Amino acid sequence: MLASKSSDRRELFEQSGLVFEVLKTNVSEKQYKDKVSDPVLLVKELAKVKVKTAKKELEMKKSDAIIIAADTIVELDGEIIGKAKNKKEAFDMLKKLRGRPHNLITGIAVTETNDPKIVVDYDQTTVEFLMLTDEELYDYINTNEWKGRAGSYSIFDRAGLFINKIIGSSSNVVGFPMHKLFKIFKNEFNINLFKMMKG
Amino acid sequence: MLASKSSDRRELFEQSGLVFEVLKTNVSEKQYKDKVSDPVLLVKELAKVKVKTAKKELEMKKSDAIIIAADTIVELDGEIIGKAKNKKEAFDMLKKLRGRPHNLITGIAVTETNDPKIVVDYDQTTVEFLMLTDEELYDYINTNEWKGRAGSYSIFDRAGLFINKIIGSSSNVVGFPMHKLFKIFKNEFNINLFKMMKG
Repeated sequence: MLASKSSDRRELFEQSGLVFEVLKTNVSEKQYKDKVSDPVLLVKELAKVKVKTAKKELEMKKSDAIIIAADTIVELDGEIIGKAKNKKEAFDMLKKLRGRPHNLITGIAVTETNDPKIVVDYDQTTVEFLMLTDEELYDYINTNEWKGRAGSYSIFDRAGLFINKIIGSSSNVVGFPMHKLFKIFKNEFNINLFKMMKG
Repeated sequence: MLASKSSDRRELFEQSGLVFEVLKTNVSEKQYKDKVSDPVLLVKELAKVKVKTAKKELEMKKSDAIIIAADTIVELDGEIIGKAKNKKEAFDMLKKLRGRPHNLITGIAVTETNDPKIVVDYDQTTVEFLMLTDEELYDYINTNEWKGRAGSYSIFDRAGLFINKIIGSSSNVVGFPMHKLFKIFKNEFNINLFKMMKG
């Protein structure tokens, strides 16, 4: 069970051939964002809260499942960069990120219904943009790809045109560090993810 | 015009929102592979041959287009790793790559019909796998994702589960360095790729 509203994340799971269902939890992220300023602690905390919420819901319905949740933020020099509300904010955000390495940090949490154990981990990928001109930034923003995305870009869509370099796991950049999931399933739940794939 | 048989590459162009057509050229790669042993020289040469072949075909048909071609190889310690012919070869290949950083090198060539100029460039991304067990390698091979792919894996599909780290451009790993294309179009053809995107 994937407790996530992100369509990028759902697509990544589908491309990995994993069989899963999506559960959309309603977690108010704001209260945590106001309390926790450390990027890594924040994404881990949010992933944990999401997975717990989903677990409670499933246990009430008496459904059994392994539940996976995640939260991603963009971090630049210790500052958390969220989602833009409008084109102006998206432009300011991309202008800040342009030509400066920044990090995509994802917290993940995995648990099982009727099992108190919750495994929490995170992954970090550094991203560098080409030094785009203001005009090019506007052109990109006009594609509307910034909407609903932390940092106002989507790496494997149009933003691929100006992403110069990444250092770290490739799946994390799309929204979920699949190699971390592989390791958690193997080491903590004794499950071989390759065996859970569609043919 | 994209002169390429690769479905991964086509998908990448589509996700970038670029409007393009695909032309499948028939270039016998073997003669070049026998002659050129340097990985970078080889992919550049193959991209150039492909783009020239496509150009000749288009000029004969009197169609005007910008033509893009590419060739990707996997390189480990100077050795070129091609495509596996069967499961046994795929297993040996992945076993070699497991736990050892290797490079994905793509040569690209861009030209225009009725213009002698051909721009050739390349891009390189380093990839690291988790240290999979033999059994896990077999499980992956049984998904058949190795078929038709240099190095016998597909990074944004199931192989995401065991790709630990990449260093370099993210689009190159999918099959085409989009940021290089962006720069070539801008600097050599005076074309803003953002303006050529679907809305």
